[in-house]
Order: sequence, then C-alpha cells, then structure tokens
Amino acid sequence: MRPGFAQLRVLDMDEAIEHYVERLGLDLVSKEDDGRVYLKCFDEFGRHSIVLRETDQAGIDVFAFKAENDDAMDGFRKRIEDWGLEVDEVPAGEMPGTGRRIGFTIPSGHRIEIFGEMELSDMAPETVNPHIWKGEPPRGMKAQRLDHCLLYGPNLAETQQFLIEALDFHVPELVKLPDGEPFAIWATVSNKAHDIAFVAHEEPGKLHHIAFFLQDWAEIGHAADIITQYNLSLDLGPTRHGITRGQTIYFFDPSGNRNEVFSGGYTAYKDHPQRTWDMENVGRGIFYYERKLNDAFLSVVS
Amino acid sequence: MRPGFAQLRVLDMDEAIEHYVERLGLDLVSKEDDGRVYLKCFDEFGRHSIVLRETDQAGIDVFAFKAENDDAMDGFRKRIEDWGLEVDEVPAGEMPGTGRRIGFTIPSGHRIEIFGEMELSDMAPETVNPHIWKGEPPRGMKAQRLDHCLLYGPNLAETQQFLIEALDFHVPELVKLPDGEPFAIWATVSNKAHDIAFVAHEEPGKLHHIAFFLQDWAEIGHAADIITQYNLSLDLGPTRHGITRGQTIYFFDPSGNRNEVFSGGYTAYKDHPQRTWDMENVGRGIFYYERKLNDAFLSVVS
Amino acid sequence: MRPGFAQLRVLDMDEAIEHYVERLGLDLVSKEDDGRVYLKCFDEFGRHSIVLRETDQAGIDVFAFKAENDDAMDGFRKRIEDWGLEVDEVPAGEMPGTGRRIGFTIPSGHRIEIFGEMELSDMAPETVNPHIWKGEPPRGMKAQRLDHCLLYGPNLAETQQFLIEALDFHVPELVKLPDGEPFAIWATVSNKAHDIAFVAHEEPGKLHHIAFFLQDWAEIGHAADIITQYNLSLDLGPTRHGITRGQTIYFFDPSGNRNEVFSGGYTAYKDHPQRTWDMENVGRGIFYYERKLNDAFLSVVS
Amino acid sequence: MRPGFAQLRVLDMDEAIEHYVERLGLDLVSKEDDGRVYLKCFDEFGRHSIVLRETDQAGIDVFAFKAENDDAMDGFRKRIEDWGLEVDEVPAGEMPGTGRRIGFTIPSGHRIEIFGEMELSDMAPETVNPHIWKGEPPRGMKAQRLDHCLLYGPNLAETQQFLIEALDFHVPELVKLPDGEPFAIWATVSNKAHDIAFVAHEEPGKLHHIAFFLQDWAEIGHAADIITQYNLSLDLGPTRHGITRGQTIYFFDPSGNRNEVFSGGYTAYKDHPQRTWDMENVGRGIFYYERKLNDAFLSVVS
Repeated sequence: MRPGFAQLRVLDMDEAIEHYVERLGLDLVSKEDDGRVYLKCFDEFGRHSIVLRETDQAGIDVFAFKAENDDAMDGFRKRIEDWGLEVDEVPAGEMPGTGRRIGFTIPSGHRIEIFGEMELSDMAPETVNPHIWKGEPPRGMKAQRLDHCLLYGPNLAETQQFLIEALDFHVPELVKLPDGEPFAIWATVSNKAHDIAFVAHEEPGKLHHIAFFLQDWAEIGHAADIITQYNLSLDLGPTRHGITRGQTIYFFDPSGNRNEVFSGGYTAYKDHPQRTWDMENVGRGIFYYERKLNDAFLSVVS
Repeated sequence: MRPGFAQLRVLDMDEAIEHYVERLGLDLVSKEDDGRVYLKCFDEFGRHSIVLRETDQAGIDVFAFKAENDDAMDGFRKRIEDWGLEVDEVPAGEMPGTGRRIGFTIPSGHRIEIFGEMELSDMAPETVNPHIWKGEPPRGMKAQRLDHCLLYGPNLAETQQFLIEALDFHVPELVKLPDGEPFAIWATVSNKAHDIAFVAHEEPGKLHHIAFFLQDWAEIGHAADIITQYNLSLDLGPTRHGITRGQTIYFFDPSGNRNEVFSGGYTAYKDHPQRTWDMENVGRGIFYYERKLNDAFLSVVS
Repeated sequence: MRPGFAQLRVLDMDEAIEHYVERLGLDLVSKEDDGRVYLKCFDEFGRHSIVLRETDQAGIDVFAFKAENDDAMDGFRKRIEDWGLEVDEVPAGEMPGTGRRIGFTIPSGHRIEIFGEMELSDMAPETVNPHIWKGEPPRGMKAQRLDHCLLYGPNLAETQQFLIEALDFHVPELVKLPDGEPFAIWATVSNKAHDIAFVAHEEPGKLHHIAFFLQDWAEIGHAADIITQYNLSLDLGPTRHGITRGQTIYFFDPSGNRNEVFSGGYTAYKDHPQRTWDMENVGRGIFYYERKLNDAFLSVVS
Repeated sequence: MRPGFAQLRVLDMDEAIEHYVERLGLDLVSKEDDGRVYLKCFDEFGRHSIVLRETDQAGIDVFAFKAENDDAMDGFRKRIEDWGLEVDEVPAGEMPGTGRRIGFTIPSGHRIEIFGEMELSDMAPETVNPHIWKGEPPRGMKAQRLDHCLLYGPNLAETQQFLIEALDFHVPELVKLPDGEPFAIWATVSNKAHDIAFVAHEEPGKLHHIAFFLQDWAEIGHAADIITQYNLSLDLGPTRHGITRGQTIYFFDPSGNRNEVFSGGYTAYKDHPQRTWDMENVGRGIFYYERKLNDAFLSVVS
C-alpha cells in the first residue's frame, strides 16, 4: 500500500500539462472525454498517478492509496466503517484502467480513496533485463514518482488516530503544540519517512503540496535551475527538511498548487523511537538550513 | 523487520577496528571479554549492527534480522519449524544488550538469526528536535546503516521459497539460468530494493559482501577517494548496479571480507512486477556501466 | 597572479579560530607575537591565505594578490604609480614567511597589496606521486582555497579602470545602473570567473564577503548541514549565482564577517563577450533561484 | 589562448553526428559542401569547436588553439619559426566563420593550428541578463566545452620544450621514466590543469582522447547512465585521475575515437611547484581509484 494518485484542480489545463510534462518530466497518459488528464512519472508501474481537472479553484480533490488488491481494499472498508467514517464506492472504470475505489472524508476534511487494481502502464519501467530508464533519458526535473502530499486541516489528533487504527500507518515524526496536541504529523505505511503529512489549520481540506521524488541533491540543484530558467514561481529552497531529512524545493504550478521535489529521507521502521519537535524548533524542523518558517508555510494557497 | 546485525570473522582485530571505525565511519560500541567487538553506524538506533570475531578465516558467522518484538520472533519460529528447518535459541545476553535470538541454517548453508529485542544505543540518532547527525559530522565514508548482504551458496530455489513462505520476503529482482532455475535473487522484507541477496555457488555458507548505505553518488565518490587515500583493496567501482539501480563500490576489509558502500536503489512494492534477467545480460545487471562480471564476482574470497 | 591572502578583523580570536579551522576546515599555521593568527586552506601551496587580527570592529584590513615574483611586483608598482595611486612598501618579514609587499588604496577605499614571494607551506599539497589530499581527509566544509572577495565602496568606474589599466584584470560580468554607470563588477586576472568583485556603496572600504572554493554542489549541501549543525548564522543559500554561475551559501563568522563557500563558475577568457545585467534583473543575477536581493545584500555588515 | 577546435576523422558521418549531438549534447552548426560537419558545445561562444571529417581511418587531423587575435597569432608564428618548426598558413574561410590559421607539426608528430578570429555563434550563451543555459536544458551528457586532448607520440622532451618556449605553456604535472625522460606531460596555457597532454609512444600523431567538460561528479554519473543506456563502448570509469584530480569516464565514439567527459581538476598557477610521478605510481596517477593502467591506456586505438 502506497500513494496511488492525486487528483488536482487546475485553472488552465494547457499550462498545467506543460508544467507537469515538460518541467516535472511526467508522461502524458491520456485526455478523457470528461476533460480530466492523466499523467504518470517515468518510474511508476501504474497507469497514472496524477489526475488534473480544470476548474476555477486550485487544490486537491482526492489523494488515493493503492492497496495490494480489491480484497485488501474491502478489508480496509470494513475497518474504516468500524472506526466510524462513512465510506462510498466509486465504480471500476470511473477512471480509465482503474478498478473500484472506496472513498471517505477524514477528520481533517480531506477526501481519501483506496483502490486495489490499476492497469500496468505500457510506459512502465522495463522488467526484462531492464535499463535504468525506458527509452530516452527523463525530461525536465526527472520526477521518479509521486511521493507524498502535505495537507492542512483541523482535527489532527483524530486524523492521526484514524490513520494508525484503521489504515496501519505509523508516525515516525511529529511536531507538538505546547499543550501536547499535534501541530503536524508525518505518517507512513511503508519504510519511506512519510507517505502523507498533515499540518493543523482552521480550514478543512486544504493542500499544502504534492511531492515528487528525485534521485539526489544534484537533481534538486538541477530542478532549481529549471525553476528559474522557465520562470516558475519558487516558494523556498533548495534546502533540507530537518523532519524526514529530505532535500527539497517548494515551488508552484501555474494554478498555484504547491509542488515539492524531494530526495533522500531516512528509512522508517515501526520499532524506531518517534522523533518529536516542539514549536520553538519547528522552523529548523521544516527548513533545516533557514531555521524559520516562511509566511507561505503558515498560509496555504490552495 | 530488517537487517539487524552481521557477525564477521576477521584475521586481525586491531586492523579490523581501524577499518570499520576510521574508514567506514562506524562507532565502536564495546569490546567484550570473549574478544568480540561491537560496532554501529551513526544513523542506527540499535546498540550494534556489526560484530567482529577474531579467528583464522574470514567470512560471516551469522546474518541476523530484527523482528518487531519477541512475540513476532516466536511467531516466525513456528513458521520456520513448520517449513521444516531446525531452530535453536540463543539466550538473552549472549550478546550485550540483545534479547533472545532464534537461529537456523537456510538451504544455502548460511546461519540466519532473528531477534526481537535490542537496547537502544546511547549513540543513537537524536529524537527530540534532532539534527541530521548527533554531534560531530560522520567520519570516513559516513556509513549510515548496515543495508544488506550478498551470500553465495547452493539450493537457491529452496532458499527463495523459504524466505517467501516462512519469512514474508518478496523477490523484486531475479537472474535466471537458461533452465529457469535462479542464478541470483534479491529479496526484501521492506520497501528497500533488497535486504538480503544470494548467488548460486557450489560451496555453502559463503559471503560475497556486506553493504552499508551512503547518502548519494557524491558520497560514493568520496568513499572512493578514501579507498585510495588509505590504500584499501578495491574490487570494483564506483559504478551502478542495473539490479536495484544502486550506486556502489566494492572493496575489501583487511581480512579479505568484501564491503560495499551503496546509495539509491528503487523502492520495492509487492504488487510491482518482478524484474528478471537472463545470463546474457547478467553482467549489465550486476555492473551496469561495465556490462560484464569481473572474475572476483564469480569467485568468493571468504 | 592570484588572490594571495586576506587579513580579516575579528572580535574574539578563539571563536574565530574555531570557526575557520573546525567549520571551514582551514589549517592553523601560526600564532604570532603581535596577536595575528595565520591560516591556510588544505589545497593551497603558500604559507598562509587568511590572517586574523583581533580588534573591536569586524571587516577587512587588506586583500592581497600574489605576483609571480618580486620583479613582477615591482613592475606593477611602477604601473600603479603611473596610474596615479600612491604606493607604500611593507618590508619582508612583516608577516612570517612573506617577502616585501606593496600596498595602495584603490578608489573604492580598500587597501590592496601585492607580494611576490611567500614560503611554501609544509602543509602544502603533495607534489611527488600526490594523493588528492595530504593525510587525513579535509575537515568541516573542506575549503580548498581562498577564492575571491566581494567589496563594497564608492567610485566603481574608477576602480574598474584601475584594475584593467594598472593590474591587467578583465571584467567578465557587470551590472549597470540605468545611467550606464557600474553598480557591480566581477574582475579576474585568471580564467576564474572572478578574483575580486565590487558593489557600489556610499561608504568606502567595506567588506561584503570573502569566499572559499569547494569541490561541487554536493559539498555546498554538506556545508549547509554543518552551518545548521553548529548553529552558524546563515545569510542565504544554498543557491546559485546567475553571475559567474557559481553555487553558493552565504553565512557569517562569529564576528559578523560574511563568508561564502562557492563551487563551479564558468571559465573566463578575455576574448569572450562581457556579460551584462540591468537593475531589473540584478536579483536573478546575484541569487539565481530566489530572483531577488535580500536586505542583507544591500546593507553590509562589516 | 585556449583549445579552439579539434578536427576528428570518423568512419560514418551519420553515426558520428548522432553520437556527438544526441549523446554528448553538442549542437550541430553546419554541414558544408566538402562534407565536413561543424559542432559546438552549448557553453562555447565560438562558431564551432568540433569538426568531423568522414574518411576510412579514425583519429585526429588537427588540434587548434585560439589566440586573442590575428596579431597574437602572427606573433606566435614568428616564435614558432624561430624555434625551428616550419609553419604554413590556411586562408581565412577555409572553415566557415574562421579567420586565417597557422599550422605546424610538433615533435610528437601532431598537426597543431592557431587561429585568432572566429565568428561568435548565434547559439552562444546569452550575455544580457543571461540564464545558465540558453533555451532548453542541455541534451545528453551536457558537454559544456571542448576541454583538452591527450595525444600519443614520440619526442616528448622536445614537444614539452616547444610548448613552453614557443607557446607559453607551463607543465603542472609530469610522469618521469626511470631515466628522467618524460613519459607523459600535462600542459596548460591557462589556469586549467591542462589544455593538452601527451604520452610517449612510438608512432607519431596518435590520438588517445578528446575531452569535454561537465559540471561535476553527478553529471559524470549521469553520463555513465547514458553510456550504458545507448550501449556506447566504455573504456573505463567513472573514476578520478590522480593527475589533475579530474573526475572522468573514457568511452568511444562509433568510429573508435576515444572521448572523455571530465569535471573538476585543480586550478594551476605557474608559481606552484610541479607535481611529478614515477612509473611505479603512474597507474594511480592516471586512474586514481583503480591504481593501475588498463591495456587500453597503453595501446592507442586511433
């Protein structure tokens, strides 16, 4: 189980496609009759990992996780309902090449979906005597995969409890408010330092960023060159996160959705002690080199 | 569950300590009365991950995995015995700070152990408002953790079957002989591309290498500088593996045990298709740049 | 002819030594009776390249260039006097291991010196079957050499004219004010993109930063890790300069002198066209990723 | 004065163009009526730096240096003739956009040319508010410039004497035979560690390799990925040279001409002591990590 896809709202589809395909380096998979556009990263096996929907307000419609198969998904459905959330089901084929999905709104106000089946892409990495890349070298920033998202919303303690109890996440890293409540959590269902993260915020359902994985710090520098070459809007970086230790840049797509490119990050295990931060040090936790939050971190754009 | 420790045989303890502490950058944890020396990497939480034993022949005594706790270990014991292997138990305290361990010999002729409990190191990474490193920057090659080992022995098909059926491994990548039997397998119990790997070999119980994780290709280059500066015996590299995609160097400790420093490697998921190689392409699979095996790969030293 | 040494004023000598030796990685050469402390980078041949003088105000006393020998220095003396500047001479031995120096104040209000002879350091790089480093791997940020300084002061047009006419500099890159006068110049006597640079400023004789050369962007990232680990005061970066293309971080020594660590930068040739910037784009010229100047760039600390 | 262009002989022009344009990343400037093809690197100002000529034997026709202008070239002509070499002149326009050239055969049997004038390329780097790259990010290995060549031939002592006395080279690094004669020399007319190099060889006029400059070690790794992805013939690397300290890979174009991609290398100054190597250590000097020469180094292909 891992991040499966994110459906993002964009203001201008052509600009969005140029951004994600030429600048981030994703492959364009298909444009469908309902106007949605499907994309994938060069190193992903599934048919798509980013879905773009044109509308008049940026943001995220849904962040979806892939379960091992439909049975596993149905098992999660029962656990989610037992935990107390309402679950709906999206029929197979609502997205091309994608099986049934279950959906639910978590306490932070975000719609999360789980699906068990997705077609392998015919642009998937090679599996017989494979090369590092299939065909031409990756384009632009060379995004390898959708890595995680950072969401803003209320009810973080309940959100964390839900992720752990119903979905088998663990929380390798955490920022605590002076009253002991979580200000921010980093949660994973794998050995990656995070598959999803949350920051406490009054408004529900907000997106801070979606993140794509790059090979290393050298590629972070290369991404920064591209950001300026094409006059993309930079938020912050290149820098490192103290939390997760990932090396990073934050910038914006043309609609104002924040993107991150990210490399590194420690390997997380359930039996490792949790890392915790207090509010005096959170600046260094988020931006390890700058050691303070920027205004943009505290106000979400979309 | 992850690689927990490797116990290596060395010919000269002082030289071995200098090698692993000053060149690889491990921390010396303790020297015990029975002569064994315990080491850990700077980014590991457990008390130790490398155990050195002085004797007259190099090689590996045991490669041990950490289970989540003793209950999980006892669960594995039952499954291993049901699968048909004999299991013995090493009492808590046989190694300092380490709980009960179960041990067994797998079909390739290697002793594998599993343990559920180990003390946290007082040299473990910080967990409250942590820095990237604790204290001084890492030494030498800056080995972050014991990553995996590559073992040589017979009965690879059975070994693979055991790892999958009794220990929940999966095998993201595989080299097949013309008759369809495995020549080499890369197996993981995590999202790392491999936690352990095997190559078919007549003699049982042989070690090809133990591998340590570095941050990235830049640190692989730095490690190569150190290898020459201190006149360590280089086997091959810097290069990349086609299999796992890891960036790598092979070299030897003063006793002739092969070491690897390794960075990168893809993130493995059970539902991804298995990558397979045939014997015509195995050279490129192992050494992606050289595209052929060297003699040393085909003959194990220890 | 190249940057030879910089004499910096520091507020607390012990803190300054710790900073330059442990954090930047310079070697301590000697402490002399007059209180001055001499340092060098691991990859420099000359006896020293940084001189520290304890006093109550930070800043730079002198930036000195090495000529090929005393004859070359005397040739420059004549040309400087012909150009119209007064030249004084500092006798051999005023600094240990250093020959006669000539000194003069350029129109920007900075004292520049030229010397022709300096002893080779016994900590110089090896020259017979040399290794990459001599002895232990470099410490801290691994500063290879004093690379250049950036000075603030008035009369940039005259300063530029002097450097070109009397000292054989050329100016590969330039920022022009709307009236065509130079706002900032980058000048070199070699193929390095700059050996010295100037920004227009009301007050004469100010220091913006002294810069040390690192191997590459990976080491810039490593330097950033050290800056936070030891809680050094960061100014800006890691980033890239549009001007020179160097990859960079700005930070402060404990006295408030700005340091830069720098890698890359193009190779400059006299017959290449000059690169020019206007004031609308100077932000991108200085900080290529941020594309705007920070307050600190416009106000000098020392 | 710097390396200006190399004219290489290739066996199949289409394959050669694909190699240098798509794999190395050079730009195709023009194909001329006499069949010669002109190329340049993205970061070069001059009209061309590589000239390809199709014929039935690979190798180098000429390695040419750029002087500051025609007057400087004519000055060198006199010095070369005074030194005792015959000089011929190639009229302006023999190569498009290129002024008069003088040519001569040095004692190692290689034709060297000097020219003073070449048109600026309309694909030259930007000079007004420039970006890091002009237009799209560089292709393939992202070769920045023609950096140097390594030539094989007899009479190295005379060749060295000529370069120093007639052309103002200095020799920062040298391998000596037991009898004190040079086995190999690295010579520069700039601050680059080398602009041209020679190894002693019986046959005159041979080419070992032409080298292109890359940004850093990360790009050396990227180049290695491309070498395998496109099944180029690898000679050796990624590795480092002890001599010059450059990070490097050797590989072949489809005609068998050896190419190098190269990054780093120290900054050379005339007043630095010469680095010298003996034949016991030359392996480490050439291939710092492997510490021995490969057969290919000792036998030239073309």
